Amino acid sequence: MKKIILLGATGSIGTQTLEIVREHPDKFDVVALSFGRNIGLGRKIITEFRPKKVSVQNKRDVETLRAEFPNVEFVYGISGLREIATFKEGEVVVNAVIGSVGLLPTLDAIQAKKEIAIANKETLVTAGHLVMAEAAKHNVNLLPVDSEHSAIFQALNGENKREVAKIILTASGGSFRDKSRDELKNVTVKEALNHPNWSMGNKLTIDSATMFNKGLEVIEAHWLYGTDYDAIEVVIHRESVVHSMVEFVDGSLIAQLGTPDMRIPIQYALTYPKRASISFSEPFDITKYGALHFEKVDFDRFMALKLAFQAGKIGGTMPTVLNAANEIAVAGFLNGQVAFQGIEAVVENAMHNHQVIPNPSLDTILEVDQETRAYVKTLL
Amino acid sequence: MKKIILLGATGSIGTQTLEIVREHPDKFDVVALSFGRNIGLGRKIITEFRPKKVSVQNKRDVETLRAEFPNVEFVYGISGLREIATFKEGEVVVNAVIGSVGLLPTLDAIQAKKEIAIANKETLVTAGHLVMAEAAKHNVNLLPVDSEHSAIFQALNGENKREVAKIILTASGGSFRDKSRDELKNVTVKEALNHPNWSMGNKLTIDSATMFNKGLEVIEAHWLYGTDYDAIEVVIHRESVVHSMVEFVDGSLIAQLGTPDMRIPIQYALTYPKRASISFSEPFDITKYGALHFEKVDFDRFMALKLAFQAGKIGGTMPTVLNAANEIAVAGFLNGQVAFQGIEAVVENAMHNHQVIPNPSLDTILEVDQETRAYVKTLL
Repeated sequence: MKKIILLGATGSIGTQTLEIVREHPDKFDVVALSFGRNIGLGRKIITEFRPKKVSVQNKRDVETLRAEFPNVEFVYGISGLREIATFKEGEVVVNAVIGSVGLLPTLDAIQAKKEIAIANKETLVTAGHLVMAEAAKHNVNLLPVDSEHSAIFQALNGENKREVAKIILTASGGSFRDKSRDELKNVTVKEALNHPNWSMGNKLTIDSATMFNKGLEVIEAHWLYGTDYDAIEVVIHRESVVHSMVEFVDGSLIAQLGTPDMRIPIQYALTYPKRASISFSEPFDITKYGALHFEKVDFDRFMALKLAFQAGKIGGTMPTVLNAANEIAVAGFLNGQVAFQGIEAVVENAMHNHQVIPNPSLDTILEVDQETRAYVKTLL
Repeated sequence: MKKIILLGATGSIGTQTLEIVREHPDKFDVVALSFGRNIGLGRKIITEFRPKKVSVQNKRDVETLRAEFPNVEFVYGISGLREIATFKEGEVVVNAVIGSVGLLPTLDAIQAKKEIAIANKETLVTAGHLVMAEAAKHNVNLLPVDSEHSAIFQALNGENKREVAKIILTASGGSFRDKSRDELKNVTVKEALNHPNWSMGNKLTIDSATMFNKGLEVIEAHWLYGTDYDAIEVVIHRESVVHSMVEFVDGSLIAQLGTPDMRIPIQYALTYPKRASISFSEPFDITKYGALHFEKVDFDRFMALKLAFQAGKIGGTMPTVLNAANEIAVAGFLNGQVAFQGIEAVVENAMHNHQVIPNPSLDTILEVDQETRAYVKTLL
């Protein structure tokens, strides 16, 4: 029985993690969890999964919930999230919170020697050097939950990282992959939220449409697998069936594929190095797709990806700026404060405005993160 | 330095194995080899690779070669081939002979505790139960050289065989994949030898056009990976880029892909579990293909594949009959004695004519092999 701590239980990855737990009650037990302000769903989750300790965003919700669940310990806010991440009984932390709020709990959990199933990509994007160093120091596994990074992780099974020639991340291209930059000028929030293949949260769906998501994944892959940016390639693969590939020095490539269903990588992070069955509505059938397409990425069309490679190669605090600026810009787009292409423009502006600090400490990262957010808000 | 014994040095797999040795003189040394009647090429190979012992098909060639290469020991015939397979200094035997003549040397080499890089699929098709049992008994690795089986072998790296749900073998469909059965009636030998993706020997190219090749591979996969026939699927993949796939119980598939170049699986069998660089005329680029297609196989169209599944499921001596009948029928087709579709008809006839013997001994297999060949010759 693996004892799970689930950060971000009511989100897309959180609820799919709970589906996996529901399917394998003999294998998994959720001992602690967090959610934000979705108290309705949170209440149902507590009732079904009976965690011992729960963190929510606001103090006021703690009081309501304590009355309803007298046997559960409730905490709140960032300190609550950090308490949950280090909850003594937990063996693995599924970090499925959105945004750079996931960073401190991840570092805490690593120091508490818990395995990390990492869906919160901002943690690695903003502080990859610190997170990887801590994980190595405490001999803790970082298990990817992103479908692309799980694919790479699975492709590397039994292989030697020094024999990797190239990592090929596949990208669906998002909701607007067939639109030119001119056609992007007047797209709406509703159109941007209509992803062709994956069902995800709003932030991620917008990041997929801009390709900032793929950009963040490039930086994440750099840290997780120690791969140079020049050895990371992105190809557009509209069917989202091949989740990513690794090319080795002998010209052999290993790819992981399957139905686009996040339960597969989530469960793999939890059962690794084993696998377990998952119930599907229909079996995977590659002939059903007829053809799988792979296209080169146009960096002029997908400017976000170009910016992400730039930020990654510059390094230091620049990926933190990229990520923080994007988070605020996406929120601005969802609120109608900025047009779709304004997201890229705002991020580029923030990067140009930033004086990069090499090898930043955690404090520096958090400071630059806050400064960038404040600066970007003045642009909206 | 790995000391290689190469059986079938002048054939397609043999010469490509020698290319790998030529590229890595620091890694490989050919200490003994065999070839058949291609003395011209054999002479060049001996001059370049300086083996200590060589077997040829005919006694008369031994005498000529002894005069030319006084420092090389020459032997001949099936007894010569078996001596080469057990040559003391050799560590790995690359079995690249064509046909069931490869069986006895393989068993000898396993008993001599040599690693086997197996390109001779008839060995596993006709005597899979004996070969696998001997390999287990002597704790010898059987390393696949076929691109499909190497793909499966690579996909299984670091995985647990008990978690395999399905093996998916890809098939180009061969030279005639777009022809109906009616259109097959008048095809010529020359047309049949024109394979769209792979450069191979004549026997293999015809087997690819009939799909008996894929059928033999199904039986080979059954033995190599202990997979039930119901869990082996064949899909037509015309680009020959995805070399095969394994589906696991969690719905995750691992595929191996790359340029259709036999040097990749040959070298992998020799460097396993490591990998080494190979020089390519151009790097692999998946976007170059634009689209990869995967289609269901029509068993009525590709009758050979249906016969092979039948033979495999029946087991016992039936795969030996399938294989021996096909060898003679293909030779008959290449000699103009039988039409293209006659190959299937002859094999089907031989299978119907055969009383299956379960769990056959080596002697029984060799006897049935000879009987089948004699019977099929009466049909041509």
